[in-house]
Amino acid sequence: MTFTAPTKDQLFALETATNIAELANHDRFAEADADLVQAIVEGVGQFAEGEFAPLNRVGDEVGAKLVDGRVVMPEGFKQAYKGYVEAGWNSLCATPDHGGQGLPFALATVSLDSLGAANMAFTLCPMLSVGAIEALEHHGSEEQKERYLPKLISGEWPGTMNLTEPQAGSDVGALRTTATPLGDGKYQIKGQKIYITFGDHDMADNIIHLVLARTPDAPPGTKGISLFLVPKYQLNDDGTPGKEQDIETVSIEHKLGIHASPTCVLQYGERGECIGELIGGEFGGIRAMFTMMNNARLNVGLQGVEIAERATQQALYYAQERVQSARAGGDSRDPVAIVEHPDVRRMLLRMKAGTEAARALLYFAAGQVDRATLGMDGAQEKVDILTPLAKGYGTDLGIEIASLGVQIHGGMGFVEETGAAQHYRDARIMPIYEGTNGIQAADLVGRKLAMRGGEAMKEFLDELRDIAGNEAHVAELVAACQEVTNWMLGASVDERLAGSYAFMTMMAVATSGALMAKQHRVAQERLDAGEGDSAFLKAKLVTTRYYCDHMVPEALGLKASAMGGADLLYALSAEELAA
Amino acid sequence: MTFTAPTKDQLFALETATNIAELANHDRFAEADADLVQAIVEGVGQFAEGEFAPLNRVGDEVGAKLVDGRVVMPEGFKQAYKGYVEAGWNSLCATPDHGGQGLPFALATVSLDSLGAANMAFTLCPMLSVGAIEALEHHGSEEQKERYLPKLISGEWPGTMNLTEPQAGSDVGALRTTATPLGDGKYQIKGQKIYITFGDHDMADNIIHLVLARTPDAPPGTKGISLFLVPKYQLNDDGTPGKEQDIETVSIEHKLGIHASPTCVLQYGERGECIGELIGGEFGGIRAMFTMMNNARLNVGLQGVEIAERATQQALYYAQERVQSARAGGDSRDPVAIVEHPDVRRMLLRMKAGTEAARALLYFAAGQVDRATLGMDGAQEKVDILTPLAKGYGTDLGIEIASLGVQIHGGMGFVEETGAAQHYRDARIMPIYEGTNGIQAADLVGRKLAMRGGEAMKEFLDELRDIAGNEAHVAELVAACQEVTNWMLGASVDERLAGSYAFMTMMAVATSGALMAKQHRVAQERLDAGEGDSAFLKAKLVTTRYYCDHMVPEALGLKASAMGGADLLYALSAEELAA
Repeated sequence: MTFTAPTKDQLFALETATNIAELANHDRFAEADADLVQAIVEGVGQFAEGEFAPLNRVGDEVGAKLVDGRVVMPEGFKQAYKGYVEAGWNSLCATPDHGGQGLPFALATVSLDSLGAANMAFTLCPMLSVGAIEALEHHGSEEQKERYLPKLISGEWPGTMNLTEPQAGSDVGALRTTATPLGDGKYQIKGQKIYITFGDHDMADNIIHLVLARTPDAPPGTKGISLFLVPKYQLNDDGTPGKEQDIETVSIEHKLGIHASPTCVLQYGERGECIGELIGGEFGGIRAMFTMMNNARLNVGLQGVEIAERATQQALYYAQERVQSARAGGDSRDPVAIVEHPDVRRMLLRMKAGTEAARALLYFAAGQVDRATLGMDGAQEKVDILTPLAKGYGTDLGIEIASLGVQIHGGMGFVEETGAAQHYRDARIMPIYEGTNGIQAADLVGRKLAMRGGEAMKEFLDELRDIAGNEAHVAELVAACQEVTNWMLGASVDERLAGSYAFMTMMAVATSGALMAKQHRVAQERLDAGEGDSAFLKAKLVTTRYYCDHMVPEALGLKASAMGGADLLYALSAEELAA
Repeated sequence: MTFTAPTKDQLFALETATNIAELANHDRFAEADADLVQAIVEGVGQFAEGEFAPLNRVGDEVGAKLVDGRVVMPEGFKQAYKGYVEAGWNSLCATPDHGGQGLPFALATVSLDSLGAANMAFTLCPMLSVGAIEALEHHGSEEQKERYLPKLISGEWPGTMNLTEPQAGSDVGALRTTATPLGDGKYQIKGQKIYITFGDHDMADNIIHLVLARTPDAPPGTKGISLFLVPKYQLNDDGTPGKEQDIETVSIEHKLGIHASPTCVLQYGERGECIGELIGGEFGGIRAMFTMMNNARLNVGLQGVEIAERATQQALYYAQERVQSARAGGDSRDPVAIVEHPDVRRMLLRMKAGTEAARALLYFAAGQVDRATLGMDGAQEKVDILTPLAKGYGTDLGIEIASLGVQIHGGMGFVEETGAAQHYRDARIMPIYEGTNGIQAADLVGRKLAMRGGEAMKEFLDELRDIAGNEAHVAELVAACQEVTNWMLGASVDERLAGSYAFMTMMAVATSGALMAKQHRVAQERLDAGEGDSAFLKAKLVTTRYYCDHMVPEALGLKASAMGGADLLYALSAEELAA
């Protein structure tokens, strides 16, 4: 079936959750007026529908292949990527100093939302490039920026992030890749990196690898890590790609999903001919890594929205087409489209409401990123709190919705040709990469809860109360979050971590619920005033009501776990647990 | 990694949830004394470990293939199936009149529990045969029983269930396959059946298809359906397989999981040479179908336990092997096995507790099947109530636990070679087949809730209270179930169906929670008395506590949805919902 970009809900979320009009009041984002916003949202939506969506199945079925040491993308990908670069979608929010359009991050969010819903695997290529761009913008020298940023920003040269090694996954400080100074300011890079998304491919004439490595005599752990830029092809003096570097694509992973996204094992400098340049200061690697990863975490949370959107559209389509059984509560014995059966309705409404709620959460977070860029009070703290919520809950909900999508298709859902199963498979990576959801939860109850001794969290909850207005279920959940917060502030590290996942979900649902309550109010006001798209607003009244009345109360059931303490977790030794 | 059959927990569940000793007090099950029970549990466990488990990966990677119109199983399957038949595992609970061992259904449950955990796809072959055996036992003529039952019961000739057609899935009454009388008491069968599990394979010298079809002038809908026995090879007079029938395996599905289970499209009688015999009376098909399906639903719920067990074992193994990061709440900065991190512990404990809870639920249900066979008061009603709970919740929990298994493996979990992803893929069919979980929920709030005007459900809840003893969280959940039950008894069909899924989960968690509370008491008593396996009992204290304190309260969060009514579901038309 075809994919339709959800532009109406995107525009509504930009308005209600991002408050993009407020951003446009600032000089920096003055260009982002309502007309431009609409043009971008609709433009990227059309592009995603026409160019990326048709490649989603072939991407899954054929996938990226390693042929003679090079990654070959499925037919159509190179051309579509070229179209993407030419349309300028890659440069929306990058700095105008090097060819970017300087628009709000929230608009890049919309762009990824549509592109990723159309083709999650494909969109990982530009999505991962963002990290390289931000690392260079924040930590590169002027010369480095001049040489690399314009091509990275346009998308002509995609970037990659090289963190993981076999022994260094979540514990990045355990990495061993070496960077040996060559005396001319350059370094010889040597080591193996794994799980490198789009580590090689045939869609561009260069690839800019950002690689974490250790200089000689570097201190152990994360303190001794530095960041290096290692292009696939060294640049000639005129800036064009020249000699190919000694970077071998050893293998690509045979994965559960996102088959069109080559996950590479890269061997750097096995023949001693791989040269990199330092980005930022020596031992500044971990700081630069956080720059790379921070918005990447939001973008992975956004992938949850993307998969949810695609799965929901497909399920809604099927449920209207598939006729099966009479409606139990109806008068007629004639079979009906399954959308008419109450439990199918429930699943569809849950999918739609969940998708919209997660979108509101992500667009709200994106708006705070832009406010932080503007230096607005408290915005960075809100980004810090929202990042684990958006990444953890966005991806968990994405999987749940993809799974409901399979369910609605019945036996057909388990057959690969239907396509519903692809979303379920693709989605499963989301809670793992860019910091597992467990790490997000740990981040929330660790660094984020500790900000200003818990005051930042309390102020955030106060803001949720304001946003939620008089929505009773959300208010009850916010109060429960407050109770857990207070308890956690007096709890041990183990106790906080033991309840971290439940707390993360509660906080995320409370935030999404508050935003849905606000969307409900706005929709009602507009309908009362006879303004806007009444069909859209009427549907919004229902999805927001469903989220607040059905999904928000579920999160209250997590409070016992959030405050359950750690004793039970450690009542058995590891051996006893596994016995 | 290797698989170890969970014999200790199986024996404990047989004791505490099934109360198998009570069954052995009845003449019919007198043979099932403690020694025989232990011998069977350990024997089938060893067989599953040694013969079925090693074929699980090749089954996934190679899968069943359609070659020249015949299904070819992966290497090793035929031999392992032969070993299974020879060991007598197929005949445990079948009638001694035709070669069965006449043991309790609960022991067949244990057998499938171990075999399916070892190899879910493979075990579907014997699992589906059970339906054919029961249909013949209950509805076949003496002559039919003589001819077919001994081979079906031994497993030499597996059986299949042929219900679904392209237009007739959940709505089986829409089927169109025809059965035309030939005058000699036999029928000519003609039509296409889809989703036929093990519809063809090379592991046996005959396959006994049970096929739903319509005789000429049959009334429309389910009332006009009859059941036919259609062997792959007609029997010679001496009972040996003779002429091959006109049954074509048109294709096998390319599925998300259970690749070793061929899901066939079968074309019956395209050349007019496919002969079947009526089982039971004309138009008795739907009754016979329910005979076939009822325990099949419990067995699918059991598959949730099986996948959960296998995924948990694999995750526990990996979490002890994989070293990553220091423990945040510890004193040392040395990296530890990830099992030491609180959130990994939480996931593992949830997996283990959930597996044991679902096992207790299924073994409890199996015990009620045996009590119904003995004609004990109220047992059949309990089976009726427990069937949707076991099928719905068992499979949902199985998927959740398989997903947690992927998560614990981190990036490795997304790589197919690890094997964790297989469980996640295999599991996804469980909530779909043998009646979707939505249909289970509808059955619960429809036929099951209505038994004796709701009195059966109320008595069931009273029994849960007794079993739970003074466990506070479970008692609270049982009270909530009571409240929902009372509300539903006064609600419309639509209202009941709208809340059916949430109610099904609440009821299942309440039942599992009551059984876990009982297991906790028994374990504590035994430890206090210095009896039993103290390591097992000590672990049991922790998993039961975790289930009651962490997982039971979550189900309370579903009450709002269970009693939410149907208005919101139908506030939008199908078109408005999809707009």
